Amino acid sequence: MPYVNIKVTREGGPGGNGPSPEEKARLIKGVTDVLVDVLGKSPATTFVVIDEVEMESWGIGGLPVPDFRKQSH
Amino acid sequence: MPYVNIKVTREGGPGGNGPSPEEKARLIKGVTDVLVDVLGKSPATTFVVIDEVEMESWGIGGLPVPDFRKQSH
Amino acid sequence: MPYVNIKVTREGGPGGNGPSPEEKARLIKGVTDVLVDVLGKSPATTFVVIDEVEMESWGIGGLPVPDFRKQSH
Amino acid sequence: MPYVNIKVTREGGPGGNGPSPEEKARLIKGVTDVLVDVLGKSPATTFVVIDEVEMESWGIGGLPVPDFRKQSH
Amino acid sequence: MPYVNIKVTREGGPGGNGPSPEEKARLIKGVTDVLVDVLGKSPATTFVVIDEVEMESWGIGGLPVPDFRKQSH
Amino acid sequence: MPYVNIKVTREGGPGGNGPSPEEKARLIKGVTDVLVDVLGKSPATTFVVIDEVEMESWGIGGLPVPDFRKQSH
Repeated sequence: MPYVNIKVTREGGPGGNGPSPEEKARLIKGVTDVLVDVLGKSPATTFVVIDEVEMESWGIGGLPVPDFRKQSH
Repeated sequence: MPYVNIKVTREGGPGGNGPSPEEKARLIKGVTDVLVDVLGKSPATTFVVIDEVEMESWGIGGLPVPDFRKQSH
Repeated sequence: MPYVNIKVTREGGPGGNGPSPEEKARLIKGVTDVLVDVLGKSPATTFVVIDEVEMESWGIGGLPVPDFRKQSH
Repeated sequence: MPYVNIKVTREGGPGGNGPSPEEKARLIKGVTDVLVDVLGKSPATTFVVIDEVEMESWGIGGLPVPDFRKQSH
Repeated sequence: MPYVNIKVTREGGPGGNGPSPEEKARLIKGVTDVLVDVLGKSPATTFVVIDEVEMESWGIGGLPVPDFRKQSH
Repeated sequence: MPYVNIKVTREGGPGGNGPSPEEKARLIKGVTDVLVDVLGKSPATTFVVIDEVEMESWGIGGLPVPDFRKQSH
């Protein structure tokens, strides 16, 4: 009966604007497999929800991601 | 002091692209009423937040919802 | 395919330490019914997860709930 | 190792359609500073994620925010 | 910069009261690997947070999990 | 109408088992002030919910926090 929420910054992927449908399908498959393998959960009652977050809305080190990366270089 | 977060796939509704404002208002009213009826919570401090999730970003059975439904038929 | 997360302060209920199992069952039933009635969702793929939060860990008005209530009187 | 999720209604800001990038940067800086000051957390492992929620998708008092505000006047 | 939240019912594991520390470590490793493999994310900025939820606080099919399972047999 | 969820590892504080009530009160006050200062939000409708997460249930770098810290030394 697991519920998994994955939040990633909206970047990368084929158009640079986030994971493609194929990448999302692989995330869903991969994470579900981990739950099945480690805890023996049933895939039928395993939800995986992927949220994409704008880069300017994600902070690390006290800065939005774009500024944090500039500063790290 | 309850906080309720409802996540649904973005589908259905009048245009097929998710719940209408009227449906969201009914969800908010219905869920708030349940909190009031069962736990005696005050509506004034009950938040309900509805998130709509793209079909391709929601997984069940190890598959994105559209693939899961095809497979189930 | 809905997922609902309900967060409430850990108070009330028969022992004053949070909702009883019967109250939780009624919350789950009530919220699921709202999703079914308003959006036609299937109960079989509707998850409801209830989190209880210590009073001192919930803030409103810039204060933990116990202090907020004292101040409001 | 903190993770902070801020949900706000999509309103206000320079165009009336939500916080500007500068406001988001100030939110991220301000909240990270609080975690550092109060708990001595490291900014490098402090994530802040800001979600903007449509007004019609946020309920309070059993009503969507726009209806709640009309009623309060 | 991913954040993953895994919610599971508190059951199974060596004592029947939820995943062991070793199982949690394998969940963390497995899910992080999926993010690295599919999206090329850096493990250093990948957070995985596991929440265990009491069986009576998790609903499916309009029932708490223990009642749902009884009914399914 | 903001909702803020703060997740921290259960450590530190006076007994080494997480933030004290006073520290939680300061977190709630500090974060609410940021929302008021930056976005002009009303404290009366600003919720702050603090979750403490066991160290073994929080992963970074593909490892539970205790293992990650050992490795980093």
